[in-house]
Amino acid sequence: MQDKTRLEKIKAIVFDIDGVLSDGRIIPVGPGENDLVRIVDAKDAFATRAAATKGFVMGVISGGNTEALDSRCRHIGVSRENLFLGVRGKLSVFRKFCEQNGLDESEVAYFGDDIPDIQVLKACGCGFAPADAVEEARQAADCVTVHKGGRGCLREGIEMILKAQGKWHFDEDKFDQIY
Amino acid sequence: MQDKTRLEKIKAIVFDIDGVLSDGRIIPVGPGENDLVRIVDAKDAFATRAAATKGFVMGVISGGNTEALDSRCRHIGVSRENLFLGVRGKLSVFRKFCEQNGLDESEVAYFGDDIPDIQVLKACGCGFAPADAVEEARQAADCVTVHKGGRGCLREGIEMILKAQGKWHFDEDKFDQIY
Amino acid sequence: MQDKTRLEKIKAIVFDIDGVLSDGRIIPVGPGENDLVRIVDAKDAFATRAAATKGFVMGVISGGNTEALDSRCRHIGVSRENLFLGVRGKLSVFRKFCEQNGLDESEVAYFGDDIPDIQVLKACGCGFAPADAVEEARQAADCVTVHKGGRGCLREGIEMILKAQGKWHFDEDKFDQIY
Amino acid sequence: MQDKTRLEKIKAIVFDIDGVLSDGRIIPVGPGENDLVRIVDAKDAFATRAAATKGFVMGVISGGNTEALDSRCRHIGVSRENLFLGVRGKLSVFRKFCEQNGLDESEVAYFGDDIPDIQVLKACGCGFAPADAVEEARQAADCVTVHKGGRGCLREGIEMILKAQGKWHFDEDKFDQIY
Repeated sequence: MQDKTRLEKIKAIVFDIDGVLSDGRIIPVGPGENDLVRIVDAKDAFATRAAATKGFVMGVISGGNTEALDSRCRHIGVSRENLFLGVRGKLSVFRKFCEQNGLDESEVAYFGDDIPDIQVLKACGCGFAPADAVEEARQAADCVTVHKGGRGCLREGIEMILKAQGKWHFDEDKFDQIY
Repeated sequence: MQDKTRLEKIKAIVFDIDGVLSDGRIIPVGPGENDLVRIVDAKDAFATRAAATKGFVMGVISGGNTEALDSRCRHIGVSRENLFLGVRGKLSVFRKFCEQNGLDESEVAYFGDDIPDIQVLKACGCGFAPADAVEEARQAADCVTVHKGGRGCLREGIEMILKAQGKWHFDEDKFDQIY
Repeated sequence: MQDKTRLEKIKAIVFDIDGVLSDGRIIPVGPGENDLVRIVDAKDAFATRAAATKGFVMGVISGGNTEALDSRCRHIGVSRENLFLGVRGKLSVFRKFCEQNGLDESEVAYFGDDIPDIQVLKACGCGFAPADAVEEARQAADCVTVHKGGRGCLREGIEMILKAQGKWHFDEDKFDQIY
Repeated sequence: MQDKTRLEKIKAIVFDIDGVLSDGRIIPVGPGENDLVRIVDAKDAFATRAAATKGFVMGVISGGNTEALDSRCRHIGVSRENLFLGVRGKLSVFRKFCEQNGLDESEVAYFGDDIPDIQVLKACGCGFAPADAVEEARQAADCVTVHKGGRGCLREGIEMILKAQGKWHFDEDKFDQIY
């Protein structure tokens, strides 16, 4: 019940990259910072785009920072001003995100999987941790998803939010906007 | 029984890419559209080539669109005119595929795993969803394969079709055509 | 017992690539033939190098054909003349391998996972199939390994052969030759 | 008890790459030595950086040798002089590591997964093997982690060491140093 109330209030969805949007693996294909390749999921991308289409403000707060991540995040519905890469100290960036979007912290859902995410998981309106998050992050979260990071965690959490608000339905002629 | 009748009528095999031909993972190796790398399966490729060799019309309908996908699909038995990449709204493209190949929708099998595939899964002659498809796609399909997308789903479904038609047998001297 | 006799006679070890040396996944990173990337395993490579060091003739018979595979196979103990890539019709190549190395077919172990491997699995002295081989290949093999292709299948089979011949032991000062 | 004593004495943490820092998979993306790509883990990287931040001497001893590995290891807390790549015969290199850092072998933890690691696993103060190490390495280790190589083995072992020494706690304002 309390959970449903939390979910109904959500107006923005913010997530970490490594272990949340990605499955936590990093593939260093060369010596440079841009050579750190991640693996993401097509079904998660459908959900982030769907949420953006339905009017949610989408954001990313991540320590990672590559051109590929920047491009990928914008491709799946995150606008440039809400895309924070190369972040140290996530809580202050989370507060900046809320401020610049005119949101109360309780109106933002956050997805994180490791120790640097704990403060934001506690501060936000509804904290999600993937099934394979570290124990400390799972304890700080309001909800631990059945799916792992980079393998449906975002899809599952976003579906929960949109269903709680009666927004998980799609018309064929709106797919153009989602994809 | 009814299923066997469905399978016996199939003359064409059409499939989605992300989560069907691929395992649903996307590897953004750089910022461009062509930098979205997928992972496919050698055993699935044997099946698509085998079906093409046996005379089935092979097709692809996918939102994805990279040079690597274009090349891969043609390599595994899909001719250029039946390869639809970068698609928005799959049902109308499916109908175009049927029309240009002189096929009734009931003569085409379709493999899909997510919400944009649902209408085609319902319209086609036999709809297949991989084991790890989203619930909505599994409910729309006639058959949910034991194998996951990108890990044997296409092999399993194509074997079912070819076996129902007595065509799953191979002569050593025909491997040249299959590979 | 009969199996031990089979293993004791083995003087050469030949294997397929996709689904045996690799885990069966193919990553098309671009449109060219050389852009088909595979995933192999470090522990399997220890075994193939160990067998080469102990005097076994190592060979590869594969439909795949990239510069990366050519380089990898030679790196793990296969000499150029016994490396057959881009093969169509594996049985005739297998016979050529035996002939050019002065070996009877019963002296060669073969690892394969799919329909094109069946004839060689039956013809060779000891046929191995990985746990995730297709049913037809598992039935044609003398031994199905516990490990999957690209994840320990070669290590397990090669250990069986070397242990049957009392050769699975390593001196620290010989690691230079194995690596 | 004895284990806790072992862990309390540890001042340095040394690890293998293939199957420990990486998940044991190798992706040959081209014919050169630098084309051998590995897959590592973001959560493991948090642990190695945390240990470095807390004052542990970090080291790597690996047969692998690419620019990407060199860069990655230094990025996660290993200084140049303690990074040994392209190694043949790990025990002598391990002794050199101890000597140049003024450490007794009993003060060093070592993580390894295969036969070339056995001598160091036995010589060091506390030997760790991942869950999917070969049997010989698991038997030589003092501790087999629940997590596999490249998927949390280093995180789990390093947490054990830091917790035994009361050092597994993090202040938000120190994340800058860890990342």
